[in-house]
Amino acid sequence: MKKYTHNNNSLTIANLQEKVYLKGWVAKKRNLGGLVFVDLRDRFGITQLVIKPDNKYYELALNLKSEYVIEAKGTVIERESKNNQLKTGEIEILVEELVLLNDAKQIPIAVSYDDNSLEETRLKYRYLDLRRPQQQRYLIKRNEITQAIRKELLRQGFYEFETPILGKSTPEGARDFLVPSRLYHGQYYALPQSPQIYKQLYMVAGFEKYFQIAKCFRDEDLRSDRQLEFTQVDIEASFVSEEDIIKLTEDILRTTFKTVLNIDVRVPFKRLTYQEALRKYGSDKPDLRYNLELFDYDKKLNIDFLEAKVVRFLKVENGAKLSRKELAELTDTAKKNHGEGLAFLKCETDKLTGSLSKYFNYETAVKDFKLNVGDLLLVGFADQYEKASISLGAVRKELAAKLNLIQADQFEFLWVVDFPLFEYSEHQQRLVARHHPFTSAKKDADFTGPLTEILANAYDVVINGYEIGGGSIRIHNSNEQQKMFKLLGLEEKTIKERFGFLIEALSYGTPPHGGIALGLDRLVMIMTNTLNIRDVIAFPKTQNARDLMMGSPNYVDLEQELELGLKKGNKDE
Amino acid sequence: MKKYTHNNNSLTIANLQEKVYLKGWVAKKRNLGGLVFVDLRDRFGITQLVIKPDNKYYELALNLKSEYVIEAKGTVIERESKNNQLKTGEIEILVEELVLLNDAKQIPIAVSYDDNSLEETRLKYRYLDLRRPQQQRYLIKRNEITQAIRKELLRQGFYEFETPILGKSTPEGARDFLVPSRLYHGQYYALPQSPQIYKQLYMVAGFEKYFQIAKCFRDEDLRSDRQLEFTQVDIEASFVSEEDIIKLTEDILRTTFKTVLNIDVRVPFKRLTYQEALRKYGSDKPDLRYNLELFDYDKKLNIDFLEAKVVRFLKVENGAKLSRKELAELTDTAKKNHGEGLAFLKCETDKLTGSLSKYFNYETAVKDFKLNVGDLLLVGFADQYEKASISLGAVRKELAAKLNLIQADQFEFLWVVDFPLFEYSEHQQRLVARHHPFTSAKKDADFTGPLTEILANAYDVVINGYEIGGGSIRIHNSNEQQKMFKLLGLEEKTIKERFGFLIEALSYGTPPHGGIALGLDRLVMIMTNTLNIRDVIAFPKTQNARDLMMGSPNYVDLEQELELGLKKGNKDE
Repeated sequence: MKKYTHNNNSLTIANLQEKVYLKGWVAKKRNLGGLVFVDLRDRFGITQLVIKPDNKYYELALNLKSEYVIEAKGTVIERESKNNQLKTGEIEILVEELVLLNDAKQIPIAVSYDDNSLEETRLKYRYLDLRRPQQQRYLIKRNEITQAIRKELLRQGFYEFETPILGKSTPEGARDFLVPSRLYHGQYYALPQSPQIYKQLYMVAGFEKYFQIAKCFRDEDLRSDRQLEFTQVDIEASFVSEEDIIKLTEDILRTTFKTVLNIDVRVPFKRLTYQEALRKYGSDKPDLRYNLELFDYDKKLNIDFLEAKVVRFLKVENGAKLSRKELAELTDTAKKNHGEGLAFLKCETDKLTGSLSKYFNYETAVKDFKLNVGDLLLVGFADQYEKASISLGAVRKELAAKLNLIQADQFEFLWVVDFPLFEYSEHQQRLVARHHPFTSAKKDADFTGPLTEILANAYDVVINGYEIGGGSIRIHNSNEQQKMFKLLGLEEKTIKERFGFLIEALSYGTPPHGGIALGLDRLVMIMTNTLNIRDVIAFPKTQNARDLMMGSPNYVDLEQELELGLKKGNKDE
Repeated sequence: MKKYTHNNNSLTIANLQEKVYLKGWVAKKRNLGGLVFVDLRDRFGITQLVIKPDNKYYELALNLKSEYVIEAKGTVIERESKNNQLKTGEIEILVEELVLLNDAKQIPIAVSYDDNSLEETRLKYRYLDLRRPQQQRYLIKRNEITQAIRKELLRQGFYEFETPILGKSTPEGARDFLVPSRLYHGQYYALPQSPQIYKQLYMVAGFEKYFQIAKCFRDEDLRSDRQLEFTQVDIEASFVSEEDIIKLTEDILRTTFKTVLNIDVRVPFKRLTYQEALRKYGSDKPDLRYNLELFDYDKKLNIDFLEAKVVRFLKVENGAKLSRKELAELTDTAKKNHGEGLAFLKCETDKLTGSLSKYFNYETAVKDFKLNVGDLLLVGFADQYEKASISLGAVRKELAAKLNLIQADQFEFLWVVDFPLFEYSEHQQRLVARHHPFTSAKKDADFTGPLTEILANAYDVVINGYEIGGGSIRIHNSNEQQKMFKLLGLEEKTIKERFGFLIEALSYGTPPHGGIALGLDRLVMIMTNTLNIRDVIAFPKTQNARDLMMGSPNYVDLEQELELGLKKGNKDE
């Protein structure tokens, strides 16, 4: 690969008169006063070539089209009209030799920053979409972020180990992808939802410090920030406490932000307990780039429709300017997020307005809520404290967008700790593990009282309102693990079939251990400032779970299905 | 993780009188003259603890059993009886505090070098098997090898990029694993046999230099060195020649052997064409740690049973000592490897013996074959040159074992180049691509003559007789790719359905490109000197494709099958 002398983002006025040998794609071709100018693009940048009419390759140059692949030899000369947008903008290459390496049909999407094709078209031609400099940047940054994380973990003595993709179905949590076995018809492997159990077995095996950039799979309906397969930085360590894992994660994020974005992240991160986060921000992953704290009012409200409701408050400075329409949207948001409604109070020069104005005395309200003229007081309510909080939390988030409270390039890191061990699943109508069934309870947990009040050794790391990682200290005692499965309502037989090996493994001298998993895709999204997860994945699926480029999933040959026992019959029928 | 002061392989006489804080597993406990001695093991090594009868933890120490997990504080003192096998063998820790972190049931396999359990038992308790220092070493070396490879590739400007695991079935080559789609019943994703097409699309997309430590999947019956899933170092680059990829691979292997084993590998590696390798060694992956070259005899043989056969020769110096039984075994080997038999001639002091002795004159034979007393001449035969060669190649390999021709810690690197583009598959009764259908032909290839004579831009790298990698320069022209599929007998419709997207992709300005894939599992086997692939994989499947530890594949809930459309019916039936 030494053949070429420079990449297309390296030549400057310092290289004048040098003989150079370049290659790349024709990004643009112009014909000006008899001269042919070519913008030659590679993964680094653009260099301008110029071909004169007396050149024997002039004819070839005239016939070049966008995205043709060429190589060129020539001499670096100074440009007449400089382009200070480009690093190479002061020079151009006077071409002496030109070779066409491959031609290109008319390109169906524009390979430039400002392509406006439908996402569907861009995904179908993903290999062309990825030629766009912006898209290249997403993946190149993704690699830089991955390497920075790896470097820190290796520096701290972690081993990078693999775990199987063909695993076992243990249907706790999301749906498994199944892989039919050819040798054992009717039996299946399952793709891992995470390497959770494998990494715990690495701890049982005594490796003490493990990590992996791991592919994980969940057969769930896709939301805008979800994919069928995703990548997590999977970490586990033995003989550690919650503080150790928190410190390690801070080290990883601090060095990664410094290496990749040259941003100094202050450590330790802020911390909130789950209860505090709910109380102050109505969320278990609050965005701390803006304030807007929820609060309670300790006076009795004499408001008929709020009788028997839990009522929570949010004061928005200068929020009175929000339009009727915007307030209606906020009300919708509250209702979509477990709230029963949203009432409000606007503080004007000498009176209150808004749906609650008739219930409040001006002076009392101004004093109690510390209202200034132009402020807005939002009142959320529901039948439970958690629901009222969450509904106002969602309103808070939307307010930040409506009021432009978020500055670009601002990163706010937060730990949320002391999560409940269990939560009630309305969907499954039973108690489920909030984190996962391998999470340990706090040391002094009281299992004789209400289980939902038990706190876990579980922690989430949050950036700008996105949960980018979560972990826990695990159960390392065999009996405790068995008890946990029983509390979750699993029958003895099911426990044995699904998790018997784990319960046995824990009985042979398992060290205390814990870990965390960071969502790499989401971290890259945050660090590259995109809201579309498909931007940071080279070959993503659509929200309909399809690969539009290759066309998968697809029908297969009957012979394949017969071999797997998925269809009965004779292939020659 | 700062809490512990040292690992168990670090304290020496230089640390005398230091207060230390250690943790680990009880590898051994002895009770000598009232004192309790404990060998404390962690991932680094062993340190001896001593607990005196007057210590308040003495009772606890007395009750310790193998594989209990403990932590201990104490003072470093000099040992009375030193153990120069251990780095820490001159000291011991006089324990002041002892904490039991977890106990352990009776361990079903011995956690030591000399465990003799059945492999089946070891795989069932893999998490304990992996506690054995030898097994830990395999995986730790695997990580070191992976990091060394990665480092060199990053240094050379390659991006480490991911590719999807949920891909598309394109049944060329081995069998695909299928993943049923829940949203589209009857349709499937497929697990990738390699990221081949994705990495070529990265080249189409203009990234120029890609690599990945990639999981690959083949649903084939397992041999001793195969697994359902395996890991390859997957590499692709644009604007490169065969020489560039060869040089890159040599750089990777040279730096990796130096970093991990401190072995200096001479570059460039030896090279043989495929034809030379077949002619001299009867193999496309010859082991060059020993000589034993095959040769031809240019005189007419007047041997009735060799009439109309291709006959090839192998001289074994001092081979006459091989027993009748050993010669019979070699004959078996020849016959199992496409040969029709094995004849031989032993040179004794004044006569020839062996099955061919009556056909040869002593003096002529001694002169023509340069025989010394004690030499053995082996004669292989078949109806084709290739078959006769391969049968003797297999005999050659077995001879090296029988005659102890292989020195330990010897590594012989080799390139085999100029492979045929096509080969005839007896199984499929048609022409198939020898490497894969994306491989390009040599520049001057003549497609009007016999196709099997066309040579490919394909190359394999071989260490000690194992193919550890193979690659090629790819077809980058859309029409050529289409022609290749047609030559392979694919119908227009099939080409379009399976590879339409690739043929289209190649038409939009695809640079010349090529690459290689190195088998990581096999490379680690060679570098750690084991013949069992399951040694270098943390959680392997058996040769029956089962995970004995977790018990997969397994039956799943009917509900899961119904959701995937694999069974018809109502889950409540």
